[in-house]
Amino acid sequence: MPLTPHTEKHFTASDTVRDLVIGMADGLTVPFALAAGLSGAVAASRVVVVAGVAEIAAGAIAMGLGGYLAARGDADHYRSERAREHYEVRELAHREEDEVVQIFSHYGLDRAACTPILAHFRTDPDAWVDFMMRFELGLEQPEPGRALRSALTIGGAYVVGGLVPLLPYMLIGGLSRALPVSVICTLVALGLFGAAKARFTGIGMGRGALQTMLVGGIASAAAFLLARWIGG
Amino acid sequence: MPLTPHTEKHFTASDTVRDLVIGMADGLTVPFALAAGLSGAVAASRVVVVAGVAEIAAGAIAMGLGGYLAARGDADHYRSERAREHYEVRELAHREEDEVVQIFSHYGLDRAACTPILAHFRTDPDAWVDFMMRFELGLEQPEPGRALRSALTIGGAYVVGGLVPLLPYMLIGGLSRALPVSVICTLVALGLFGAAKARFTGIGMGRGALQTMLVGGIASAAAFLLARWIGG
Repeated sequence: MPLTPHTEKHFTASDTVRDLVIGMADGLTVPFALAAGLSGAVAASRVVVVAGVAEIAAGAIAMGLGGYLAARGDADHYRSERAREHYEVRELAHREEDEVVQIFSHYGLDRAACTPILAHFRTDPDAWVDFMMRFELGLEQPEPGRALRSALTIGGAYVVGGLVPLLPYMLIGGLSRALPVSVICTLVALGLFGAAKARFTGIGMGRGALQTMLVGGIASAAAFLLARWIGG
Repeated sequence: MPLTPHTEKHFTASDTVRDLVIGMADGLTVPFALAAGLSGAVAASRVVVVAGVAEIAAGAIAMGLGGYLAARGDADHYRSERAREHYEVRELAHREEDEVVQIFSHYGLDRAACTPILAHFRTDPDAWVDFMMRFELGLEQPEPGRALRSALTIGGAYVVGGLVPLLPYMLIGGLSRALPVSVICTLVALGLFGAAKARFTGIGMGRGALQTMLVGGIASAAAFLLARWIGG
């Protein structure tokens, strides 16, 4: 089967990689910004650590369960639409034929050009349903077991990402000494993560690193200033 | 043009609705869970409010900028892939024809059935490129201006969602009185949001309400218990 270079490139970003990126992007950014923000407004390291751990738990569970429900919803949706297409191909074949013609008409093709395809579909209802799922509805068959795997990947990546900014506050006594260590560790991690992510999105590694560092930096600066303004 | 019921149903969830749902889902859940979690570990309402505001700012900016970069990345990706398909249709037409045959072979169709389609595509390269973008690569043309709109929608929804659990702490003195008000207001808001979201995902409204309330409740309970355990 002939694989063109861009086809190969598309398939490097698997669902698992996408889940890792989703969890890690927020996990590295939000707990970091919260910890930096609180450092500007409260006096005790303990409060930063407690708030950070609470935020990591809340974020990991909310995003993980959200991913679980989204994947379950996709699978349910695929199943119910597939059952409906099976019914339509069986009972309303003429209307389905019109829909096939309709799909191809977007590309300037008339009914005559579809004739061999329609003739084949009448003899192979399963292939017809596969075709309608992809070409009419734009739906892909979800992998089995994806929901649980997605939840654990997103939640786990959030926890790992969130511990990077938080560990310095846990290990180093004194906010004023922990804050710069946390900022440096997290900016390095954000840069590495952005560069790695860039491999999958097709932008340059330097640009990818800069983008994620900027997002984390802006979010943290805003949280820091707001927290100091309200808390000060 | 004949629209089947399920086709109509697919198009009710626009990109803007999806952005609203993304921002609101996390905005209602994470600041709520953080505030509830901190209530179990610190004594002062002020700390909960400062941490909550810092988290809302951090979350809204991180998710909003993340949405902006994702939409910009999608648009860049679409443009570069489209340019590549134009080149291939023009310069490597035979290979592209094989790719069309390859796409249809998944549905049991042979080269002969594709002949009228290939003949048409040779006379209409733009339609050919449109076809390859959608059916080889699975890419849709992004709306122009989507990146900024996406960022503001996600970030704004996060702020609105995050203020629901936080306002009781701002308006009511005393943590022990603010916490139950915050929990009740947020569970009601999560239920309403889940029911409204269910209209777009095609599950029942009751089930949708229950799901979002469960996610928020589990995340908050975990944050509460962890914060109390570490902070106590």
